[in-house]
Amino acid sequence: MTTGVRRRMGVEERRQQLIGVALELFSRRSPDDVSIDEIAAAAGISRPLVYHYFPGKLSLYEAALKRASEDLAGRFVEPHEGPLGARLLRVMGRFFDFVDEHGPGFSALMRGGPAVGSTTNALIDSVRQAAYEQILAHLQVQDPPARLELIVRSWISLAESTALIWLDGRRIPRAELEVQLVQDFAALAAVAAARDEELTALLRRIFTTEPADNPFTDLAGRLITLASP
Amino acid sequence: MTTGVRRRMGVEERRQQLIGVALELFSRRSPDDVSIDEIAAAAGISRPLVYHYFPGKLSLYEAALKRASEDLAGRFVEPHEGPLGARLLRVMGRFFDFVDEHGPGFSALMRGGPAVGSTTNALIDSVRQAAYEQILAHLQVQDPPARLELIVRSWISLAESTALIWLDGRRIPRAELEVQLVQDFAALAAVAAARDEELTALLRRIFTTEPADNPFTDLAGRLITLASP
Repeated sequence: MTTGVRRRMGVEERRQQLIGVALELFSRRSPDDVSIDEIAAAAGISRPLVYHYFPGKLSLYEAALKRASEDLAGRFVEPHEGPLGARLLRVMGRFFDFVDEHGPGFSALMRGGPAVGSTTNALIDSVRQAAYEQILAHLQVQDPPARLELIVRSWISLAESTALIWLDGRRIPRAELEVQLVQDFAALAAVAAARDEELTALLRRIFTTEPADNPFTDLAGRLITLASP
Repeated sequence: MTTGVRRRMGVEERRQQLIGVALELFSRRSPDDVSIDEIAAAAGISRPLVYHYFPGKLSLYEAALKRASEDLAGRFVEPHEGPLGARLLRVMGRFFDFVDEHGPGFSALMRGGPAVGSTTNALIDSVRQAAYEQILAHLQVQDPPARLELIVRSWISLAESTALIWLDGRRIPRAELEVQLVQDFAALAAVAAARDEELTALLRRIFTTEPADNPFTDLAGRLITLASP
């Protein structure tokens, strides 16, 4: 090991190295534009050796996507301490970090490129489900009413589309969108709460633990200003 | 024609008939579960004759999807008369009619089944673009600022995900969700307007033409009630 001779990697170690190299390439450019030759070159091995570990580009792409999915799901984990709005804002910061790091790959995946199939869809769904469960845990809800499930799941899709639109030109500062999405969650919840007493009670309970300048009161003040002639 | 003998259809007429039959089947069940044999039986022709008009199930699926896309885009067209909230509510009603009529096919498509490819993605994008352009026309905006484009496009994705979640069990009355989406649009616009003077001016202009009980003031009142201890 100290002689300067490169140590031979074990099978699993080599697989993990290839996944890391591929993920970096798939993140920086649309996965369709990345060739096995490039991955082999970036990993410092021959093309046939790549095929020895992965039968084709799709299986390597799926392995890279699996790693990225686990990475993203891990970023949703946030301590159950302090105001909820502040927790959600920290998670939004880490979500945009991820989107920033994997921009072209994230866009290609979410816009449904040719690589999308049942495995990739299942991975996307697993990340959405992880986000959904984290939010419910922070809201301290175990058996969500239908309207709450709708708010949380549709807000997750709003966060995805907001990030995708941001990536397309980055014309709005991401820090602004991170705050906006937290307030969007409050706004969507308030709209739905009008028709659901259980949801109203839940939101009232949350407000009692939020600081005075929580996203709801802030938003209410803004709406009054906007709506008054 | 009056002898009871079935008239032979022309090529284009037969193609259109097959598309109609296929669209009905693809709408009612997941397209993966619909066979060419079924389509042939429903159209009253032989399986080889179907292949004479369409080289395979994918091309027939894409033709059916094209017709459905044009149908949906047509439902977004709304006269430029009366309050904006009421116009958007009527469009939401027709959108949910469409989703209702094409439930399983809509879900399968939007959840990215195996049939999804570049043609289907382009069709989905064309419908989103049609919705986007209709909304801008109603807002009387030709060159939207980045934040307005974000609101409109991300709200369109919110409408899609809300409809998809509704289809999964139909646990919330659709009429409620149609109103909710109109108010969601107002809420998302209000959140973003806090950071954009042009957007604030635009929303103020809209409010002057809306009735007193417009979705914004309604939402503001609700937020105040929720946020007050």
